Amino acid sequence: MTATDPLGAFCVPNPVAREGASTGPLAGRRFAAKDVFDVAGTPTGFGHPEWLRTHGPATATASAVSKLLDAGCALAGRTISDELCYSLSGENVHYGTPRNPAAPGRIPGGSSSGSAAAVAAGVVDLAIGTDCGGSVRIPASYCGIYGIRTTHGRVATDGVLPFAGSFDVVGWFARDPALLATAGVVLLGGVPAPAPLRRLLVFSSLFARAEPAMREALHAAVPRVAAHFAEIVEPAGDFADIDAWRVIFQTVQASEIWANLGPWIEATRPAFGPGIKERLAAAATVTAEAATAARARMAEIRAWLRETIRPGDALCLPTAPRVAPALNTPASDVEVAYRNAAMALLCPAGLGGLPQITLPLATAEGCPAGLSLVGAPGADEALLGLAGRV
Amino acid sequence: MTATDPLGAFCVPNPVAREGASTGPLAGRRFAAKDVFDVAGTPTGFGHPEWLRTHGPATATASAVSKLLDAGCALAGRTISDELCYSLSGENVHYGTPRNPAAPGRIPGGSSSGSAAAVAAGVVDLAIGTDCGGSVRIPASYCGIYGIRTTHGRVATDGVLPFAGSFDVVGWFARDPALLATAGVVLLGGVPAPAPLRRLLVFSSLFARAEPAMREALHAAVPRVAAHFAEIVEPAGDFADIDAWRVIFQTVQASEIWANLGPWIEATRPAFGPGIKERLAAAATVTAEAATAARARMAEIRAWLRETIRPGDALCLPTAPRVAPALNTPASDVEVAYRNAAMALLCPAGLGGLPQITLPLATAEGCPAGLSLVGAPGADEALLGLAGRV
Repeated sequence: MTATDPLGAFCVPNPVAREGASTGPLAGRRFAAKDVFDVAGTPTGFGHPEWLRTHGPATATASAVSKLLDAGCALAGRTISDELCYSLSGENVHYGTPRNPAAPGRIPGGSSSGSAAAVAAGVVDLAIGTDCGGSVRIPASYCGIYGIRTTHGRVATDGVLPFAGSFDVVGWFARDPALLATAGVVLLGGVPAPAPLRRLLVFSSLFARAEPAMREALHAAVPRVAAHFAEIVEPAGDFADIDAWRVIFQTVQASEIWANLGPWIEATRPAFGPGIKERLAAAATVTAEAATAARARMAEIRAWLRETIRPGDALCLPTAPRVAPALNTPASDVEVAYRNAAMALLCPAGLGGLPQITLPLATAEGCPAGLSLVGAPGADEALLGLAGRV
Repeated sequence: MTATDPLGAFCVPNPVAREGASTGPLAGRRFAAKDVFDVAGTPTGFGHPEWLRTHGPATATASAVSKLLDAGCALAGRTISDELCYSLSGENVHYGTPRNPAAPGRIPGGSSSGSAAAVAAGVVDLAIGTDCGGSVRIPASYCGIYGIRTTHGRVATDGVLPFAGSFDVVGWFARDPALLATAGVVLLGGVPAPAPLRRLLVFSSLFARAEPAMREALHAAVPRVAAHFAEIVEPAGDFADIDAWRVIFQTVQASEIWANLGPWIEATRPAFGPGIKERLAAAATVTAEAATAARARMAEIRAWLRETIRPGDALCLPTAPRVAPALNTPASDVEVAYRNAAMALLCPAGLGGLPQITLPLATAEGCPAGLSLVGAPGADEALLGLAGRV
């Protein structure tokens, strides 16, 4: 890992900078923001030059940005995101692929690609991103840093470009778990004080979904986490249907994405890179009937998840089924072997509205591998606290 | 106005109570929460006995509830809401219509009906509700109290039943503007610090939409607000298309409502009261094409609104076109003369994601009449501060 790249290498060509307050819990720190957070007086680009061209300057600054500035953290740049956030790879055909400082020759993961890579490179202390399907968790795992997806609805999303509102949340990255937690104090704003973590839920069926080297490396890291729990259990019930859940998630997500972005896409006809183009075309075809059926099933899954992951519980699972794929992996391989396999592990937090933290506790094939903990709603602070103790 | 009703008269038959912290800015105060906020260990009912029957206890408490408890405010009860929130009237066929303490014989307004009425009756100090299309603003105006709809996305919505996510926000009521602002400190969590309010925007075309007695009463109150601004302007541009905007708002709203609630309605086939039943049936018929076209227009309207209501501006307009209608007004009259006319005045805040505060500054036909101020995104605190000075 080197820190030789300037921050600009991780940013879109639409710079932004703001001073932080002179005092506060993050005084003297610097952060970067994904290209989906509004900063008053400047345009937000959604990872696409056509979006940037067709939208004027924001009149208000996103709360998440304002809170960090007010806590003393300076905004240093606007990071590259996948186009309209609709990818987990970080390969942006317009702005380039941010270098993965922890895994040369490999993708950084996305869609909060530049935010994760800039933190991993050490050019900022913190970075904020958004996570709908995995857009914080995946790049954190691939880049070997800490990342959190927050409880759905807990962190303010004003001034954040909407993607799929049922799942969109603000998340952030740091190399240091204590700093990740301090950002949590600032962004979560205190309370809910959830039950202390007591029970670690470990389903071997979920670990079985990781590729062998990854599985082995992550299994070896579980005891470091387990040491901080009173009980380790594999409860009754199962995640056997998780491939079907993944389809449910993707159906609801696609219908909301098309609702939000379809009008602009149809009016503007922008060019998209491989994968994203096909995904958006498919999103346009989700029928109302399919979306309704998926939502009905989602309500049942959510109820099951919230019964299974109770206050005081944390579900332990691989963040991703594999380490970061090589740059320029063919899109068709990415779609099936990588994206869908990852989405299966990522979808419980999304479907349940649950917080998930990924910890850079392992290495496989010489690359970082994140171990994840999913908590009950409101367990964000408990997960952040645990990360600091592990 | 009397305070003889017990809190229970404004509540669903599903009581809840929680102690507040012993210290904090709201210590010693009591609040009530609309039947859409989760409280761990108890079921939330969405204003409908069938929803209550088919849903288990919540595992987590909504952040908005937790923050008030942590600030010292005790939770005293769960208030009646319109069925699934899909009404502005407050007439719930299952639980009854909460009495409007400020206008006997008239509806309280909804859908945060019990919350507004309980505050107006003086049986709680504060109450929280939600506002998608007007569900805080309308009952505040009808019941003669202060109410705020917050900037979209600023207040945490975890543990709040989703209705139409593009517009749903948490809001609250108080009789005392200082208390309304203190709740804002607790629920908004500080920052954004927006520009101080300087310019009051007054469009006579918007006042022309109020019925004569209402218009006259609200016009007479404008100088009390205007005295706190450096400039009073009627800018170029206009709200001439506001009836079409209302249709755009209702189309996007209906498509999201059906996406969220359709699966449960189709599976459960619950009984609904007049108005709500027809509205839900119509929501089921919104085509994807219609929703997409409406969203495209919404993006343009939002851009225009944010250009017109700049940081430091407040748009002054009637909260509602009329005072609270009489109880048992035929549903057909309610739909056209009252609901659609109100939605036209209510939709700019929704379409723009903008905060709006309603001030009980006038009386017409012996009933309360609210005057509203709509601010730029993040102007919540500025609006709350202004309310205290007027």
